[in-house]
Amino acid sequence: MAKLRHQRSVSKLYLRDGSSSAKLNALEQLATGQGIEVVRCEKNMLDELSGHGAHQGVVAEYSPRSASQGRTIRQVVKGIDTDNALILILDHLQDPQNLGACLRTAECAGVDAVILPRHSACPVNQTVIKVASGAVESLNILSVSNIVNALEVLKKNGFWVYGTCDSGEAELFETDFRGRVALVIGGEGRGMKRLVAEACDMLVRIPLLGELESLNASVATGVCLFEIRRQFAASRQ
Amino acid sequence: MAKLRHQRSVSKLYLRDGSSSAKLNALEQLATGQGIEVVRCEKNMLDELSGHGAHQGVVAEYSPRSASQGRTIRQVVKGIDTDNALILILDHLQDPQNLGACLRTAECAGVDAVILPRHSACPVNQTVIKVASGAVESLNILSVSNIVNALEVLKKNGFWVYGTCDSGEAELFETDFRGRVALVIGGEGRGMKRLVAEACDMLVRIPLLGELESLNASVATGVCLFEIRRQFAASRQ
Repeated sequence: MAKLRHQRSVSKLYLRDGSSSAKLNALEQLATGQGIEVVRCEKNMLDELSGHGAHQGVVAEYSPRSASQGRTIRQVVKGIDTDNALILILDHLQDPQNLGACLRTAECAGVDAVILPRHSACPVNQTVIKVASGAVESLNILSVSNIVNALEVLKKNGFWVYGTCDSGEAELFETDFRGRVALVIGGEGRGMKRLVAEACDMLVRIPLLGELESLNASVATGVCLFEIRRQFAASRQ
Repeated sequence: MAKLRHQRSVSKLYLRDGSSSAKLNALEQLATGQGIEVVRCEKNMLDELSGHGAHQGVVAEYSPRSASQGRTIRQVVKGIDTDNALILILDHLQDPQNLGACLRTAECAGVDAVILPRHSACPVNQTVIKVASGAVESLNILSVSNIVNALEVLKKNGFWVYGTCDSGEAELFETDFRGRVALVIGGEGRGMKRLVAEACDMLVRIPLLGELESLNASVATGVCLFEIRRQFAASRQ
C-alpha cells in the first residue's frame, strides 16, 4: 500500500465499502488530493479486481503508461510507419491472468499497439501488470470507450480487421495477412461481442484438432500474432 | 474430499504432516486400503501442490487416465500410424496453471501423446485437471522417470527431437518439420535441463520482437505446435 504514495500512474483506487480503518481513510484522502478517482465497492468486487489475490481492502488501477501516453488512436496510427503494422484488440477480457498473459504475448510478438475497452472489462491492475512481466510498461496501450468506433478508425487508416472466432469463415493458416493488420481476440467463453464481430472485415478460426472447443485467450493470441508475423517476414523475402 | 472415495484415478494422497484430525486419518486409512500411496508433508508443499488453492490439509494426485493407461512409450509409439506423428515433452514444469494450460493447448493441437517427468515436476493435480479443461481425460499422457531415456526411445522409433530454447540455433519458422516430431518445452525460468537439451537433435527458438525475454510456457507450446501442424498440412497439399 505504501507503494501507492510514490506511484505516479495510479488512475483509480477501489476501497472496500463500509470500511473506515484509519489506513483506508488516509489513502482515500491522499488519492483524492492527487486527483485520483476513488470508488467504494464490495469485497466481492475487490476480490475480482485483484484476481483473487490479497488486497487488504484496496485495489489500485493503473493507467497504462507507455509510449501511447494519452494519445488517440489516430495519433498512434500516424506514428506507425512500417508497411506491416500489427495492432491487437482485446475485446472485453474479464480475467486479469488472461489479460496479463495476452499483453506479455503481444509484446513478444512486437505489436505496434494494443487496444482495450475502457468499460466492462478487466482493468490494468496489479495482477495484470505482474503477469504481463514488464509488457505493460513497454507496450503502446490505448483504452477506448467504444471498440467498434476504434475499428472504424483503423479501417479508415488502411487496416484490415480480422476477428477470431470458432465459426470463422477462413482458417488462420489459409488467410493472407498483408499490409496493416488489426487482430481482434474475444473475451473468455462468449468470444467477441456481436457488434464487434460485425465490424470485422473477416472472421478467422484456428483449426483445432482435438475434442476441446477453444484455446486459452493468450495462447490463441500467440498462435495468431506469430502466424501474422511469419507471413509478414515471408512476404519480405 | 468426499469425491476421493469414488475417484478411481487417485494415485497419491498428500496429507498435512502433524495433523491428526479424524477426517484426515479416515482418508489416510481409506487411501492405504485402496493401495494409494500416502505422503505426509508440510503446509507449504500442500500450498504449492494445490496451486495455492484451498486444500484443507489434503491434496490428491491423479494418475493421468487416458488412452495410455499404463502403456510404455514403445507401446504408445507403435500405436501411432500417421506419417506426421507429434509428441510433446514437458520438461519439469513447476506451476500447475502452466502445466494445465500446456495440456489444454496440446489437446487442441491434436498431439499423439504428452510425456511428463514423474519426479521433480508439478504432478497432475486437481488444479492442472481444471485448467486443462478436459484435456487430461482425452490426451495420451505418459509419466516417465527419465526424460533423456524417453527421448532416446523416440529417436529409435524414427522421431526427430526438437528442443525449444532462447538461444536455439534455428528459428522456429525457418525449421523444416516433417515426419515424426517430438517437441520439448522447458520449465519456467530455467528452461530445459542440460542433459535434456543435449539429447535433442536440434534446438529452435521462437523469434521474439519485443523487449521481453520469453513467452509463457503454454503460449510457447501453442506457437510451436501449431507451426508444426501448419507445416504438416502444407506438406500434404
